[in-house]
Amino acid sequence: MVTLCKPAVAVPEHVITMEETLDLARARHADHPQLPLALRLIANTGVAKRHIVQPIERTLEHPGFQERNELYEAEAKARVPAVVEEALGNAGLRPADIDMIVYVSCTGFMMPSLTAWMINTMGFPRHTRQLPIAQLGCAAGGAAINRAHDFCTAYPDANVLIVACEFCSLCYQPTDLAVGSLLSNGLFGDAVAAAVVRGRGGTGIALERNDAHLVPDTEDWIAYSVRSTGFHFLLDKRVPTTMEPLAPALRDIAGAHGWDAGNLDFYIIHAGGPRILDDLGHYLEVPPEAFRFSRATLTEYGNIASAVLLDAVRRLFEEGGRPEGARGILAGFGPGITAEMCLGRWTSPARPAEPPLGARRIVGYSPRFQHARSRS
Amino acid sequence: MVTLCKPAVAVPEHVITMEETLDLARARHADHPQLPLALRLIANTGVAKRHIVQPIERTLEHPGFQERNELYEAEAKARVPAVVEEALGNAGLRPADIDMIVYVSCTGFMMPSLTAWMINTMGFPRHTRQLPIAQLGCAAGGAAINRAHDFCTAYPDANVLIVACEFCSLCYQPTDLAVGSLLSNGLFGDAVAAAVVRGRGGTGIALERNDAHLVPDTEDWIAYSVRSTGFHFLLDKRVPTTMEPLAPALRDIAGAHGWDAGNLDFYIIHAGGPRILDDLGHYLEVPPEAFRFSRATLTEYGNIASAVLLDAVRRLFEEGGRPEGARGILAGFGPGITAEMCLGRWTSPARPAEPPLGARRIVGYSPRFQHARSRS
Repeated sequence: MVTLCKPAVAVPEHVITMEETLDLARARHADHPQLPLALRLIANTGVAKRHIVQPIERTLEHPGFQERNELYEAEAKARVPAVVEEALGNAGLRPADIDMIVYVSCTGFMMPSLTAWMINTMGFPRHTRQLPIAQLGCAAGGAAINRAHDFCTAYPDANVLIVACEFCSLCYQPTDLAVGSLLSNGLFGDAVAAAVVRGRGGTGIALERNDAHLVPDTEDWIAYSVRSTGFHFLLDKRVPTTMEPLAPALRDIAGAHGWDAGNLDFYIIHAGGPRILDDLGHYLEVPPEAFRFSRATLTEYGNIASAVLLDAVRRLFEEGGRPEGARGILAGFGPGITAEMCLGRWTSPARPAEPPLGARRIVGYSPRFQHARSRS
Repeated sequence: MVTLCKPAVAVPEHVITMEETLDLARARHADHPQLPLALRLIANTGVAKRHIVQPIERTLEHPGFQERNELYEAEAKARVPAVVEEALGNAGLRPADIDMIVYVSCTGFMMPSLTAWMINTMGFPRHTRQLPIAQLGCAAGGAAINRAHDFCTAYPDANVLIVACEFCSLCYQPTDLAVGSLLSNGLFGDAVAAAVVRGRGGTGIALERNDAHLVPDTEDWIAYSVRSTGFHFLLDKRVPTTMEPLAPALRDIAGAHGWDAGNLDFYIIHAGGPRILDDLGHYLEVPPEAFRFSRATLTEYGNIASAVLLDAVRRLFEEGGRPEGARGILAGFGPGITAEMCLGRWTSPARPAEPPLGARRIVGYSPRFQHARSRS
């Protein structure tokens, strides 16, 4: 049983409220012909506050792509380890127990990926598989869970660490003045999230099936333009309409599993914006509170890109989880437009099914991983 | 049995020979104090010619990161489909049979990834999983094979398409003057490669085990500096020494499988440069001709980054393959410094084990994929 354990999430110490965001938009874009529309769209997000890695004055400066990317690296190295350690603790594992790190982030670019630094500095085994994904945007949180699910399905004794590190504020582009850009400036926030997917044991969401879906011919609806000034985020106004074609994809994966997507016990949905959640709730015919974890993420942190799903799962845990066997769906949405979806049941073993920490090596692992363990 | 089928490889029509490379280096860096060393290093690569997407005069211009990246996208869209179609044909499959596309490329950056465009334009199912990897550099070819192996191990009815698209010439940085940069300017080439990993059936390398290894504290030996002018490739002079710590990793994966890495029937090794191949051959105690597929790739195309392994596998096929059950190792090396390794046996079923094309849907797939197929 492949189980997504309790995520750890940290948001930076610098805070910008909705009121401050609106004041900034008014001050910086006083002459913008569509300012009233932009202000209305920002107000409608319901994002009460966001957390960012620098004070807002610094965030509004653009020191160049190189300096921004160096800042991304420094902030990632400063903020990721504590979150990872908490996630490992939540799963009852140590770095030596991890077989793969899936690192998802679309707001900075490093080669080698932060995974190499993590292995070198945090005690992960030399044989840890590195799976860095930069190009799935907000859908990468769902993709990370699904690829971890696949890996543990292939190797049931494996454990996968997922890290979502998104500093969206480092992609602020002061020269981008389309309404979609002004809205994005008021929507996205920064966060680091991590969680372990265990091949065996653990409390959380036992993953049972995953699937993906690409909405036809929407490649340019959510996209980066890559320029000398860095990644420029392009957000088409048609994006909120994509729940109409995506709701059937959610119904399909549930139906294939003998479940009804409109009648599940928990929902972990990408909080891309309020209309995403409203529309999907409408098409699935579920009450607004079904998406309360996602709504809370959006209100308190803004859209934190690939970290949204893990933060919403954390809120499910902090509400006390669900009764054993309760059924749920997770769905991340992002550029493509792509949905990465999975189904799972709440599982909370009555007693630990795993040997205590430190005793794992004497247990009979599959040959494929026995060797790997013996070197760790 | 998860099988890596015959790859397809295409190189661009523009050619630059070793002599032309040396002449260019002499002309452009006449005053460089280390020019003689750089010329010697380039001559020692043994790269007779390379293929590049633009004429050399255009390649030497730097029109800006945005234009370079737009060129990357246009060239990828122009060159990838034919290679993919050939790879599908080699595997006896159609786009509708593919469950995941692993797209590896470190020489351009798109979000969404080219995978979305491929699904929209080439007939791949809407549910095709997209796994774009940009941050593993030359090791990504091995990682792609290994993640495809994992996926098909989890879902034995699945098929994975791997695409490696590397236009290294689009990362030429005229202002980079370190000896490592001058050497790189004479070493890397452009290519597009693709191959299918089939969960069942197919002729080629039946994948049995994979592993990864990170050489400690070598993160900055092969790295990108991300700047307003694009990706700047940094190559440390210590890189050729890494075969000493990596040869034991190859011995370990073989030993764990009951094999001797020094006595296998075929070797598919990353052709990073001549000393990589010479040193690894020395440490594994194998004769020079054991690495002949990699040496041929290096001589004819240069180091084509993540496409090297697939091109070397293609050459193994074109030599006629191996006797049934012959044992081999594949190893990609790249930033981290990371090795992605796998073991496999040559398999060439005497008669087709698969139903004919078009009949696949009536076969009993696992429930996980039956649904996916029914929508494709």
